[in-house]
Amino acid sequence: MADKNLGITPRATSYADWYQDLVLKGELADHSPVKGCMVVRPYGWAMWENIRDVFDRFFKETGHKNAQFPLFIPLSFMAKEAAHVEGFAKECAVVTHYRLKAGPNGIEPDPASKLDEPLIVRPTSETIISAMYSKWVQSWRDLPILINQWVNVVRWEMRTRLFLRTSEFFWQEGHTAHETEKEAVEETLRMLDVYRKVAEDYLAMPVLVGAKSAAERFAGAVDTYCIEALMQDGKALQAGTSHFLGQNFAKAFEIQFTGRDGTVQNAWTTSWGVSTRLIGGVVMTHSDDKGLVMPPRIAPIQLVAIPIWKTDAERAQVVGAIDAIAARLKQAGVRVHVDDRDNYKPGFKFNDWELKGVPLRLELGPRDLAAGKAVLARRDQAGAADRSDKQVVDAAALETIVPALLETIQKALFDKAKAYRDANLRRANTYEELVKTLETSGGFVLAPWDGDAAVEAKVKEETKATIRVIRAEDRGTKAKAIGTGRDTEQWAIFAKAY
Amino acid sequence: MADKNLGITPRATSYADWYQDLVLKGELADHSPVKGCMVVRPYGWAMWENIRDVFDRFFKETGHKNAQFPLFIPLSFMAKEAAHVEGFAKECAVVTHYRLKAGPNGIEPDPASKLDEPLIVRPTSETIISAMYSKWVQSWRDLPILINQWVNVVRWEMRTRLFLRTSEFFWQEGHTAHETEKEAVEETLRMLDVYRKVAEDYLAMPVLVGAKSAAERFAGAVDTYCIEALMQDGKALQAGTSHFLGQNFAKAFEIQFTGRDGTVQNAWTTSWGVSTRLIGGVVMTHSDDKGLVMPPRIAPIQLVAIPIWKTDAERAQVVGAIDAIAARLKQAGVRVHVDDRDNYKPGFKFNDWELKGVPLRLELGPRDLAAGKAVLARRDQAGAADRSDKQVVDAAALETIVPALLETIQKALFDKAKAYRDANLRRANTYEELVKTLETSGGFVLAPWDGDAAVEAKVKEETKATIRVIRAEDRGTKAKAIGTGRDTEQWAIFAKAY
Repeated sequence: MADKNLGITPRATSYADWYQDLVLKGELADHSPVKGCMVVRPYGWAMWENIRDVFDRFFKETGHKNAQFPLFIPLSFMAKEAAHVEGFAKECAVVTHYRLKAGPNGIEPDPASKLDEPLIVRPTSETIISAMYSKWVQSWRDLPILINQWVNVVRWEMRTRLFLRTSEFFWQEGHTAHETEKEAVEETLRMLDVYRKVAEDYLAMPVLVGAKSAAERFAGAVDTYCIEALMQDGKALQAGTSHFLGQNFAKAFEIQFTGRDGTVQNAWTTSWGVSTRLIGGVVMTHSDDKGLVMPPRIAPIQLVAIPIWKTDAERAQVVGAIDAIAARLKQAGVRVHVDDRDNYKPGFKFNDWELKGVPLRLELGPRDLAAGKAVLARRDQAGAADRSDKQVVDAAALETIVPALLETIQKALFDKAKAYRDANLRRANTYEELVKTLETSGGFVLAPWDGDAAVEAKVKEETKATIRVIRAEDRGTKAKAIGTGRDTEQWAIFAKAY
Repeated sequence: MADKNLGITPRATSYADWYQDLVLKGELADHSPVKGCMVVRPYGWAMWENIRDVFDRFFKETGHKNAQFPLFIPLSFMAKEAAHVEGFAKECAVVTHYRLKAGPNGIEPDPASKLDEPLIVRPTSETIISAMYSKWVQSWRDLPILINQWVNVVRWEMRTRLFLRTSEFFWQEGHTAHETEKEAVEETLRMLDVYRKVAEDYLAMPVLVGAKSAAERFAGAVDTYCIEALMQDGKALQAGTSHFLGQNFAKAFEIQFTGRDGTVQNAWTTSWGVSTRLIGGVVMTHSDDKGLVMPPRIAPIQLVAIPIWKTDAERAQVVGAIDAIAARLKQAGVRVHVDDRDNYKPGFKFNDWELKGVPLRLELGPRDLAAGKAVLARRDQAGAADRSDKQVVDAAALETIVPALLETIQKALFDKAKAYRDANLRRANTYEELVKTLETSGGFVLAPWDGDAAVEAKVKEETKATIRVIRAEDRGTKAKAIGTGRDTEQWAIFAKAY
């Protein structure tokens, strides 16, 4: 079996091992010798750059600018917003010295360089950014401030999983300050919708959109909104969050301005972020036992072209022709790679690029060339029993066929993922039904919940499932709330999650 | 005087204050509450993104891929290459704990979370990257590895200057591993030439190109090459370095491979970097007492369009017309901003955008509009006594006029900077002449130097000047070396430097 040769654990054997095999053998990332920190390899980083560029374009279209704030946060800043420090205290990397020296046991931190105030490696940047906004904002005319940064952050983790949970990860964090509460809430929801759009239209990852319960809120937020995706093992993945921070950080850091009416007011702030965790989400949403499946819009390579030959004369002819096709496709905006390695056979290359998840493979041999044809094979249908993954097309029309086919694949991936997600969004009317559905079916389970934190905690203790999202569109149907039996119109979506 | 109103210290009064005024009032960067760390504001970061994109394109064209390696480096890794740790020990931020807790004096690092092995916040990444390459390389077929990363690094600084010297800064670091010494040396020089090209063709910053003396070499390198620019105060700025690391890091981290002949060999590695320091270099190369002067090719805004009106009817008309012009210019690839703020007068806006260094200003009033004309004003000639900075042009031809004029400005900035640099590259034949020229004229001074480290140290002690670069093209003219009087054909270029 080809699958066996590639050494990928089938999903049915171990979903966790399958995931790790794909990330490592697909060369997206690697473990590093630094506990909890990953190396994102070129193929994974190229994927991230594509994702980043899409978000960045939408951020700029909605009026945001990029900047860069310090990596370090003074300890006292972390402590200024009570809920915030409470939320992050247990996972902070702390810098205490600024010099090394030779000691009795070798090189060690120089005791003479101990900092008066320790510095925290940012787990998120609300505090330091609020401190700067306080300096920049005087009048209502200075608002809104709409800034984003693409940076690394550190939240110490003991049990790590590449992309999903590592001590260092890479993300964007948008931080905005507004004159009114209304504007800040609008901003929070606007960016939530950008997240939904990119997740669905570019990552082909359908998401549920709504608010978090109080227990799942960001430390320091008034309201946290999120997009939640469903992985193939029935577990949810939080894929992005957008926070309405009210005046909490503005008060703690004195982001004050003179309003239109001449009074001094506190600003209203928001923050929102998505991270390299999305890469893990894409892997777990689309891939199969043969390897990765990349959505075309963010694939580092959209089409790999593989020349097929036997003799040297054929090789020269076919490689020349395939280079010309690649040039034409690049001209048409397709990200193409020609695999003309001569120390591997085509069959090996097919498996190799299937593992890497390249959406389309183009095969060209001497007979195709003579006939003006080429073969296209779809990664998302690889291994179809009826060979429907393959089609013979006119080589002269590739510039129009390939871009259209890539879009077809993009849509097919989304539709497939959405069908799976829809089939795994179930309804429970009672506590018992909720617990049973979570245990037997997994997936998302919608249940009437009146906001009772004790019930939420009990579900978590019993099933490990949490409230993932509370959607506006689920509100309204009257029911007896789980756990309390009280009347409620609020429905929450529970799931076990990454 | 307009200059006075903007509050910019003239260069003649204090070059250092002038520089800081430009960076702060030009809103490129700001001091942060974190000792030694800067905030790069949106205008400065947009400039950096433009610079980054140019470099990134050249890196990719020369076969490199981006990746991301951990922020933290285990202490023991730093110590593996002796010269390397020696060079960086005095400026390392050290992480010693991974959790906070409430203590008797408030929140503090939790003693129970003390790390067995402290982690260094990367000052550069040769060690951690070499450790990964060691894992990835087995055969000569795995080489070369050509990887770059865009990241933040930390080198602790007590006396900081925005962009020029801060504890945290932003850079790219390329790290490559090769099968042969020859290939590694070629790579080192190839990237040096990319640096020269971007500095000169995009930043309009002429540079001297060559090797460092042993004393100025990167800690762990066999050879360090550099590009050196000259600031308006006669001081040099190291603008980029490219290191041939020989087998030093390969041996320390066991980057070994089976060669074509079947023997196990150590790889040959290189590293090369440019940083946000380049922004400081651009500021100090081109700007004047009115403010920043941005080279068009990297300017965040290339043209600012300012509508001029008196009545509301005029306003509607002129702003409509200027928006249409802006749309046409954007279509032509020009980065345009329309300043239609109605709470400022045109004169204020002129000064404001001159301070920000926008290369071209377009003015459009009702009479221009009626005549089908517009006024263009060049920032690099602002304040010309004969008003030669301004020209009236046909509004219909702006799409062709503006791009051409931006290129004219780009070239004019380079030519001006080069004329200044050439006029300040002097020759000294004796030690006394060298010291006198450094003291009285500043600038670069070329002198015969036979490699004697004691003489180099003496010059530094006496004048604070260092050897900036040893150029291949200066070699060959026989002379008596400064300090030693020995015959030499080597000439070194000295200067005081940032």
